Amino acid sequence: MSETKTPLSPAALSRRSLLKAGLSAGTLAGTAVAARAAGDPLITEVQDWNRYLGDGVQARPYGTPSPYEAHVVRRDVEWLTAATESSVNFTPLHELDGIITPNGLCFERHHAGIADVDPAAHRLMINGLVDTPLVFTMEDLKRFPRENRLYFLECAANSGMEWRGSQLNGCQYTHGMVHCVMYTGVSLKLLLEEAGVKTSAKWVMPEGADASAMTRSIPLEKALDDCLVAFKMNGEALRPEQGYPLRLVVPGWEGNMWVKWLRRIEVGDEPWHQREETSKYTDLLANGKARRFTWVMDPKSVITSPSPQAPITHGKGPLVISGLAWSGNGRISRVDVSIDGGRNWTTARLDGPSLSKALHRFYLDIAWDGSPLLLQSRAMDEHGFYQPTKNELRAARGENSIYHNNGIQTWHVKADGTVENVEVS
Amino acid sequence: MSETKTPLSPAALSRRSLLKAGLSAGTLAGTAVAARAAGDPLITEVQDWNRYLGDGVQARPYGTPSPYEAHVVRRDVEWLTAATESSVNFTPLHELDGIITPNGLCFERHHAGIADVDPAAHRLMINGLVDTPLVFTMEDLKRFPRENRLYFLECAANSGMEWRGSQLNGCQYTHGMVHCVMYTGVSLKLLLEEAGVKTSAKWVMPEGADASAMTRSIPLEKALDDCLVAFKMNGEALRPEQGYPLRLVVPGWEGNMWVKWLRRIEVGDEPWHQREETSKYTDLLANGKARRFTWVMDPKSVITSPSPQAPITHGKGPLVISGLAWSGNGRISRVDVSIDGGRNWTTARLDGPSLSKALHRFYLDIAWDGSPLLLQSRAMDEHGFYQPTKNELRAARGENSIYHNNGIQTWHVKADGTVENVEVS
Repeated sequence: MSETKTPLSPAALSRRSLLKAGLSAGTLAGTAVAARAAGDPLITEVQDWNRYLGDGVQARPYGTPSPYEAHVVRRDVEWLTAATESSVNFTPLHELDGIITPNGLCFERHHAGIADVDPAAHRLMINGLVDTPLVFTMEDLKRFPRENRLYFLECAANSGMEWRGSQLNGCQYTHGMVHCVMYTGVSLKLLLEEAGVKTSAKWVMPEGADASAMTRSIPLEKALDDCLVAFKMNGEALRPEQGYPLRLVVPGWEGNMWVKWLRRIEVGDEPWHQREETSKYTDLLANGKARRFTWVMDPKSVITSPSPQAPITHGKGPLVISGLAWSGNGRISRVDVSIDGGRNWTTARLDGPSLSKALHRFYLDIAWDGSPLLLQSRAMDEHGFYQPTKNELRAARGENSIYHNNGIQTWHVKADGTVENVEVS
Repeated sequence: MSETKTPLSPAALSRRSLLKAGLSAGTLAGTAVAARAAGDPLITEVQDWNRYLGDGVQARPYGTPSPYEAHVVRRDVEWLTAATESSVNFTPLHELDGIITPNGLCFERHHAGIADVDPAAHRLMINGLVDTPLVFTMEDLKRFPRENRLYFLECAANSGMEWRGSQLNGCQYTHGMVHCVMYTGVSLKLLLEEAGVKTSAKWVMPEGADASAMTRSIPLEKALDDCLVAFKMNGEALRPEQGYPLRLVVPGWEGNMWVKWLRRIEVGDEPWHQREETSKYTDLLANGKARRFTWVMDPKSVITSPSPQAPITHGKGPLVISGLAWSGNGRISRVDVSIDGGRNWTTARLDGPSLSKALHRFYLDIAWDGSPLLLQSRAMDEHGFYQPTKNELRAARGENSIYHNNGIQTWHVKADGTVENVEVS
């Protein structure tokens, strides 16, 4: 694949001019839409919903989506794992917009199922190399100063099935192990200071209260930087599958470290080399050695629409190309989009709040002429790191890896509007 | 009530010093918590959730809150209205944190119940003083460039029952007709430009597809400024009770104008004087005349915890005072908190993203000595507008009003930690 960055001509690059071109052709507005105005009974006639009373306010004390949206759900891939208790499902990214993931659609990854924890009986212990071992109830934790931060969480195995070629036909499956919510919690630094960290301490190990007792080693430097002990997501209590009542938030780092049902934080002077950081969550290279402690989720992006599960159904003319970008290093500074498999690139429009280590939404509004496209997006973060091609990744790391695939994704848009997961070479 | 702004002594004002004072007294950490570490079986013994597999990923394709959170729901007040189809329920603000309201907890206000609209059959018409009347399908609208913005929505009648004194014991009821979500939609300006607005046009009138056919007059200047025609909230499709599949977003202005189930926008040269802007949503003054076109929601705030529904249950020592502030004029620049009924004020800590016309979260972390408090908060926005006392409001507008009560709220915290809605004079 060519990595040249020859821009399209300025006229073709202008979003407005592209859109206007589409509109003046009458494919969206103008003739086609005006024709509807003259005789569409769905606007000229009174509909049932305009005629009869609907449900009142007592119908749903906790609301649910419209029945017309029943297809917007998390989905799993049956052959991926043997047991649902140690499996994964995926966020329907192709159906979502903006940068916030609704709590009910945040992907799940469990190692021993969803722990059913009674918050009144839940405890968090801090022990190890501390002056005073401490045990907190949930009420204790809610007496410390709180913070609210919007962060993406990405599983290290997101896009993992793509290392050896295109396997899964939809961004829900290829990229749906990422979500972004606003967390409310207490700074881990504050809790560690409360216990008093000994000068010999260099690492911490969070432990989960589920039956897998998930444990990971985290450098003390990160623990004292921006980690949160969180009890709320998007304003309300954590969902059970996201660690209710307490989870660790490790901004920008792989999701497996964000220990759910958090019950203990041990402070130590060296890493523990737990199962989940030795046989798992390491990157097996071509030479048989494994990279380990690969924590930061590098810059990544994906076009969510059009995509295999969100084909173009409206024919030629104005087309909104929409996608997500994120980086564990900080803010996204730029996303480029190619419609020809990486030969030419156009800078997309970033929209919505730009927050460090959060999802960013990008758009490219084009006039589609009906010819096949090879759609790609490429993210760059504020530190200048950018997303590689899949072949660049393979050249560096071989094809044995499962984790940390942030390669550029290609969607093949066909003339009939259907979309397929492909690779270009 | 005195409006003097004498600050507390610098030492007493320091959040850290207050917290440290509480901690060194052993009320939170230190002796009490360390004692737990020595012998709390809930941390020293393996619990059931640490022993047995939980539910797998196929349990809930669209997730729901923990059963332990069943009390976190919208609630109505039975005596407020005769029929649930033309009623209101309230967001449980006292249970939430941060600035995002989960979609299932956004308050409802209907005039003819929840319209059950089939999105495939829904149409939006733009007509009146335009060059080309247009009718859009939902698919048409999704071909225009999109925006993502986080905005609060407040019903003009929020706190309306407080005009004649304290009536409802809980911030869910006194202030729960406000929520804040991220909307995805198309700029109304773009759609109006598509139709071509005639030079004689000065107003627009959105109309709802529900059985009340809600209609309001909006100045063209606002319509061309920051209004959105929105189809998503917090990433997913609008909820039915929030106007699925389409609603108008009128940032900073009273919620009644954010027409749900939006089916038509008429462009005209004068206001229509509809029912909902004449007999309703106007402010009856003491002299019998009514203020009308009072659209902007002025700066307002409320302490959400402690509050009547969220009493202090942990006794003396560190206490997190948490609340929300918002202004239809733009960003919140400052929130002051008083613990003595408005005699002395301390500037609170604003936390989380600060976005124009969105909710802002504030905190004041104090060491509570167990004595009664008269808690108040007072918001100021970036334009210098600030929240008045209820008596200042009454002096200006009498006591006949229902709408636009942004007066300072007082909570009486008693020595036993229970909290009551009161007024101070």
